[in-house]
Amino acid sequence: MTATKTPDIAAEIRVTAIAAKQAGKVLAQATSETKAAALRHGAAFLRARADALLDANAKDLAYAQTKGLSAAFTDRLTLNAARIEAMASGLEDVAELPEPVGRILDERTRPNGLRITRISVPLGVIGIIYESRPNVTADAGGLCVKSGNAAILRGGSDSLHSSAAIGQCLRDGLAQAGLSADCVQLVQTRDRAAVGAMLRQHGLIDVIVPRGGHSLTERVMAESKIPVLAHLDGVCHVYIDAAAQPAMARDIVLNAKMRRTGICGAAETLLIDRTVSALLPGVVDGLVAAGCTVRGDAAAQAADPRIQPASADDWTTEYLDAIISVKVVDGVGAAIDHVNRFGSSHTDTIVTEDATAAEAFLNGVESAIVMHNASTQFADGGEFGMGAEIGISTGKLHARGPVGAEQLTSYKYIVRGNGQVRP
Amino acid sequence: MTATKTPDIAAEIRVTAIAAKQAGKVLAQATSETKAAALRHGAAFLRARADALLDANAKDLAYAQTKGLSAAFTDRLTLNAARIEAMASGLEDVAELPEPVGRILDERTRPNGLRITRISVPLGVIGIIYESRPNVTADAGGLCVKSGNAAILRGGSDSLHSSAAIGQCLRDGLAQAGLSADCVQLVQTRDRAAVGAMLRQHGLIDVIVPRGGHSLTERVMAESKIPVLAHLDGVCHVYIDAAAQPAMARDIVLNAKMRRTGICGAAETLLIDRTVSALLPGVVDGLVAAGCTVRGDAAAQAADPRIQPASADDWTTEYLDAIISVKVVDGVGAAIDHVNRFGSSHTDTIVTEDATAAEAFLNGVESAIVMHNASTQFADGGEFGMGAEIGISTGKLHARGPVGAEQLTSYKYIVRGNGQVRP
Repeated sequence: MTATKTPDIAAEIRVTAIAAKQAGKVLAQATSETKAAALRHGAAFLRARADALLDANAKDLAYAQTKGLSAAFTDRLTLNAARIEAMASGLEDVAELPEPVGRILDERTRPNGLRITRISVPLGVIGIIYESRPNVTADAGGLCVKSGNAAILRGGSDSLHSSAAIGQCLRDGLAQAGLSADCVQLVQTRDRAAVGAMLRQHGLIDVIVPRGGHSLTERVMAESKIPVLAHLDGVCHVYIDAAAQPAMARDIVLNAKMRRTGICGAAETLLIDRTVSALLPGVVDGLVAAGCTVRGDAAAQAADPRIQPASADDWTTEYLDAIISVKVVDGVGAAIDHVNRFGSSHTDTIVTEDATAAEAFLNGVESAIVMHNASTQFADGGEFGMGAEIGISTGKLHARGPVGAEQLTSYKYIVRGNGQVRP
Repeated sequence: MTATKTPDIAAEIRVTAIAAKQAGKVLAQATSETKAAALRHGAAFLRARADALLDANAKDLAYAQTKGLSAAFTDRLTLNAARIEAMASGLEDVAELPEPVGRILDERTRPNGLRITRISVPLGVIGIIYESRPNVTADAGGLCVKSGNAAILRGGSDSLHSSAAIGQCLRDGLAQAGLSADCVQLVQTRDRAAVGAMLRQHGLIDVIVPRGGHSLTERVMAESKIPVLAHLDGVCHVYIDAAAQPAMARDIVLNAKMRRTGICGAAETLLIDRTVSALLPGVVDGLVAAGCTVRGDAAAQAADPRIQPASADDWTTEYLDAIISVKVVDGVGAAIDHVNRFGSSHTDTIVTEDATAAEAFLNGVESAIVMHNASTQFADGGEFGMGAEIGISTGKLHARGPVGAEQLTSYKYIVRGNGQVRP
């Protein structure tokens, strides 16, 4: 009956979003037990279909090879028995998290007898746009189900078969628990127009979560007419204050930079108070021994000849690599100014034994996460005790920092009366 | 020195926004006492300068007369002694509200000893775009100061002189309390390009709050690259359930529709269960006596000949006038479906003595505010005990329902350690 054979991606995405919205209405009302059952069934399907998942993944890997993709890319794309088990147990962990929906956030009775309750409700439909990391399909989809939200998952085109197979486990888990499989929707096309079409589903998709590199997030933020929860960069700072314990400063810098260089909570810039710049050689020892390149301003280079010159760009660069920039500053005030000017509002830490300097930093730095005597690599929903996260937000509206199940809810007011009219 | 005489609105707005951002950084750290002092000084200036305010208002009224603006418009624009006193005492009331900044929202100690505190922080800079209602300058500006946010106020061009004079009172109050006057910025131009320029100050203005009619809000939502807190429409419903007390139903419908027809919480559509459609003549009696036009579907017309035919458009129309549409539905499920389909997610109420029906409605209706046996006209920050509101939001992200001082904050995580590094 149809007059055209050209696939209309925009129309397909619209149909997907409408189905998600409908399914989400029922999911929003589902009990904690039903949602947990769906997640546990999903985990069981992942385990039972491990061979089929590996077959699907082999197809993706073969396709990736024809494109000559990097070793790091291929590693992220690869599934194996341990990674499948990690996804399955991850879903079971999410099932056990405290119920995020229906929490009473506030309750008050007014003088006229009206009882006003503010309770948490799901956001509705969440669109997740990510790169070719198949595990995100399970992790993000599971967190959406837990929080009562329908999910529209658009993984990187190179993980098409893997993501589809994983997503089907979630969908079958939902159906087995008596919920609509359409609570988890997969966008199964390599056509990049699908992303643009998702970003235009205002009124059907309530929030967009991009998970991936700078260019993906930048595109989503620029194009989306739907609110976005995300961070564009993670230019995180360690500031060594005049009153820092030298050994602690060395340990925190080394861990913050080198534990894992590719995560958004990795430190990219070291600030150090001028009065203790003599600590730099000790700090650089550890970094260099771990294979880190160190760049710095003139004062930093004067303190340690191994430090190479930094350019203006270094202060705003998220290396995601074994490189760190070092700047000598005059006190905690200058450190705060540098972080607020050049940072990305993600995570920044001060190392000091001076409580006054610590409080100044914690209050003055405007980032989503500010730390005292701790490594920036703790910027993670799991480390925060949130169980799981769908990402980290540096925006100011709605959620900041790790975005977990609780942050994927909104609220509504319920007002109970006995016939009150307003005078 | 300047080579051009053409005013560059975009550049002016940018300078304004930069100044607001700078001033806001200090305001964000101000104590509750300092902010309260600024508001009280502002109130004192309003009272002391009442004559000057009336002179400024006279200029605006004279200008409005040359344009032949409506009586309702002129009424909203007009200042008098009572309205000046209301603004002043409003600022004093806001000064007394609980401190919204620095609230501990969550606190936990992790097994590794990290102490994680989530505390409320100001949003930063709030842009408020409103119509020619001079009192909004004081109300919105005051709420921003209380919540530690810098405000950029752009009132309707017909209230230029009045808003400037009121805004100057706030600015002088800030200065007298030792804060920067630039915490409250006024956009003093009749050029409508100023609004567009404000909506493009991404990175300087953190949130936009439009206060005004449908067309203003629609323009702001469509053009803004900055998050918007607002409601586009208030198509509010009263549903008379099968188990409603007839007298209560009559009182609530009459109050919800007619107490004030021009506010966003006024009811626009009455839904009534088919089994009690015989209650309609009693309900219509009260409405007609109060001067209300009643339109309805065929079943409603059959129940009461005074009901005129409704068209499809009626179900989505916010009359803001003495008009109501009536639809006969089959039970609470159909009522919920109608509200979610045709409503605007603002405020909806059920009248019933049946607790099961009430819970179904309260859970199933997706609006920001859902009520049981109460008039929709209670949808107001003051009535909710929030002291004051800058508006009502029907979006799902960040704030829903009345937006008061607490809703004008974000949060940050403060992590305190003693040298922890991540394994």
